[in-house]
Amino acid sequence: MLRNILDNVRAQAPLIHSITNYVTVNDCANILLACGASPIMADDIGEVEEITALCGGLNLNIGTLNARTIPAMLAAGKRANALGRPVVFDPVGAGASALRTQTAHHLLEEVRFAVIRGNISEVKTLALGSGTTKGVDADLADAVTEDTLAGAVAFARQFAAKTGAVVAITGAIDIVADAQQAYCIRNGHPMMRLVTGVGCQLSALAAACVAASPGHPLQAAAAAVCAMGLCGERAFARMAQQDGNFAYRGYILDAVTNLTGADLEREANYDLR
Amino acid sequence: MLRNILDNVRAQAPLIHSITNYVTVNDCANILLACGASPIMADDIGEVEEITALCGGLNLNIGTLNARTIPAMLAAGKRANALGRPVVFDPVGAGASALRTQTAHHLLEEVRFAVIRGNISEVKTLALGSGTTKGVDADLADAVTEDTLAGAVAFARQFAAKTGAVVAITGAIDIVADAQQAYCIRNGHPMMRLVTGVGCQLSALAAACVAASPGHPLQAAAAAVCAMGLCGERAFARMAQQDGNFAYRGYILDAVTNLTGADLEREANYDLR
Amino acid sequence: MLRNILDNVRAQAPLIHSITNYVTVNDCANILLACGASPIMADDIGEVEEITALCGGLNLNIGTLNARTIPAMLAAGKRANALGRPVVFDPVGAGASALRTQTAHHLLEEVRFAVIRGNISEVKTLALGSGTTKGVDADLADAVTEDTLAGAVAFARQFAAKTGAVVAITGAIDIVADAQQAYCIRNGHPMMRLVTGVGCQLSALAAACVAASPGHPLQAAAAAVCAMGLCGERAFARMAQQDGNFAYRGYILDAVTNLTGADLEREANYDLR
Repeated sequence: MLRNILDNVRAQAPLIHSITNYVTVNDCANILLACGASPIMADDIGEVEEITALCGGLNLNIGTLNARTIPAMLAAGKRANALGRPVVFDPVGAGASALRTQTAHHLLEEVRFAVIRGNISEVKTLALGSGTTKGVDADLADAVTEDTLAGAVAFARQFAAKTGAVVAITGAIDIVADAQQAYCIRNGHPMMRLVTGVGCQLSALAAACVAASPGHPLQAAAAAVCAMGLCGERAFARMAQQDGNFAYRGYILDAVTNLTGADLEREANYDLR
Repeated sequence: MLRNILDNVRAQAPLIHSITNYVTVNDCANILLACGASPIMADDIGEVEEITALCGGLNLNIGTLNARTIPAMLAAGKRANALGRPVVFDPVGAGASALRTQTAHHLLEEVRFAVIRGNISEVKTLALGSGTTKGVDADLADAVTEDTLAGAVAFARQFAAKTGAVVAITGAIDIVADAQQAYCIRNGHPMMRLVTGVGCQLSALAAACVAASPGHPLQAAAAAVCAMGLCGERAFARMAQQDGNFAYRGYILDAVTNLTGADLEREANYDLR
Repeated sequence: MLRNILDNVRAQAPLIHSITNYVTVNDCANILLACGASPIMADDIGEVEEITALCGGLNLNIGTLNARTIPAMLAAGKRANALGRPVVFDPVGAGASALRTQTAHHLLEEVRFAVIRGNISEVKTLALGSGTTKGVDADLADAVTEDTLAGAVAFARQFAAKTGAVVAITGAIDIVADAQQAYCIRNGHPMMRLVTGVGCQLSALAAACVAASPGHPLQAAAAAVCAMGLCGERAFARMAQQDGNFAYRGYILDAVTNLTGADLEREANYDLR
């Protein structure tokens, strides 16, 4: 099944509209190309609805939100909903400022998301009204470990039931849940934390996967999370002596370019609960 | 002649002002440095005219245009015209939204361009008032092939005659035309489509070439297109087994850094019509 | 001492808030991760004070300043001052437009900086009210050479005394001075000029160093400058035949990832005056 998700992206080449932050936007565009999709970025209120209408999916990321782009995100999200196009939400830094937290809640009220992808602190902020955060990284006190996994899975399922979205909480162990089922995913490598925007890239990849496999958002989001983690592992295996975080970042994108559905099926490391 | 164009850039190191999108802006700055030019980016209406006045050329790209930057593009374009500095226009996504199409037409009315560089769908939108587009990529139905080349050359020449600009239509076969002559260029590699912003980078490179060879915009634009394609070929030749689109993107910029005028003269692959 | 500065960054992982330009913002985030710090970017007036309050240091860069971000820089800078958090200022292109020059002076009046880092033309513009500049690069007429070094050191010390900031003037020879002492640093490589944003990255790195070693801004800024130069040397030593400016840019960041405090202590090349 995960195999088909990636194969569908490569076969259909969905066009994905991202309204995202200017820190990692280039990597988001390049991961979409690497996985077989096509990117378009547009964030002016005067065109976002039209651009969304051209696309198979929409990716909203509040990493450097501002007064100009917040209304654009809302308008694009509503238009995608009206047209039945899946929307992925990446609540970067929710909890770090009132503006981010309020914007995230506003988007949750106004837009129906296919997938919400964040770290545990960001998702707790969305679900519980407030949360702790260390900037754009998860608070260590929140980290999902083997000991806290069962509780985190129950939390993810509940939030999925409440929002109707697939909830993807990424960290050392990733959880991808809808109201009924949860993938607990153990792909990935700690070095991924040394590259800015791996989470943003994953959300873009998830948008491509969800857009290319309508009706299967849980599997699509799980496939994206497994694929990203697997590419993080392959990238690490390629590291040579003088390589650092720039090389590692590139190796991840290169691994995405070369990843096949068969690779993903074989090397995805998860259990279903 | 193409040789001199690149040699002039390296000898004169023109300063190029780009008002461009935030997706590919870093690559645009780095290709300008790679070819021997110097980049400056500024997009606030409060300074763009002064910045343009410092520069040898101006590069306008509407990839993520917005209400704040559109007036800045108009002001910078007019100032460049008043000072006799060449302006390159990259109508990214023209046809994908009314805002892009109208802005592109507005810029065409108000600013005299030395070079207009886009894919066939974007240029058709400019020339014919409307066009089809697949986001920021050309519509397949528009693609320039050996069968449609003669018609596309005639179209490019007519649009060049109408606008007074050199018209560069890039794709599998590239056309660079003024009212009298057209270069049909067969450098390049299909993998270039897997990297975001190759077109944006080419427009920046064209601005450097045009700025460094006043009075020769046709040859300058053709040199830029041949150089970019040639670097795409050289980059592909360098691809190793685990390399993907990140490596390829880097190899293109590295090839630009190392390209000499003699290389360009020898390996440019075009016919003049 | 320089060794401790870098070790402190890796041990404390300070969170650094950058309000910076969209050309080099990704590299700024990645160098912060490479040196052991954490980046957060936020530039909306509605959240910058809160984000600054979460952080160990603030990095202000006027590379693509605009009407929306200038008030955000002022607000964040004042908040950082009120909380006693160090602020680094990178006056990119000061002198290139009235907007940049006036904004730079306005920031100097309203915000107390721990470190001001720019090229000689930018710093002259700040100190003398006006200066020459070639866009975002220093004017050759201003260049610090062995012949002009003594005068430049005196100038840097005077400007440091006037502002209370450590003044870091980078170029072929770097000067890092407070009112009493000056480091004259000879690390670095001419190829660093072929990569956009090396200066921006250095300012981000300086913010991490200053934040992790309170009370030692002179040594912290000197450590950052030596580290960046040393990484430029190491990156150059790694260049292979087909490598160009993209590879070089990556090798610099990789070198930062792998640089130890001991390496820095051993290979820093400076004299104290």
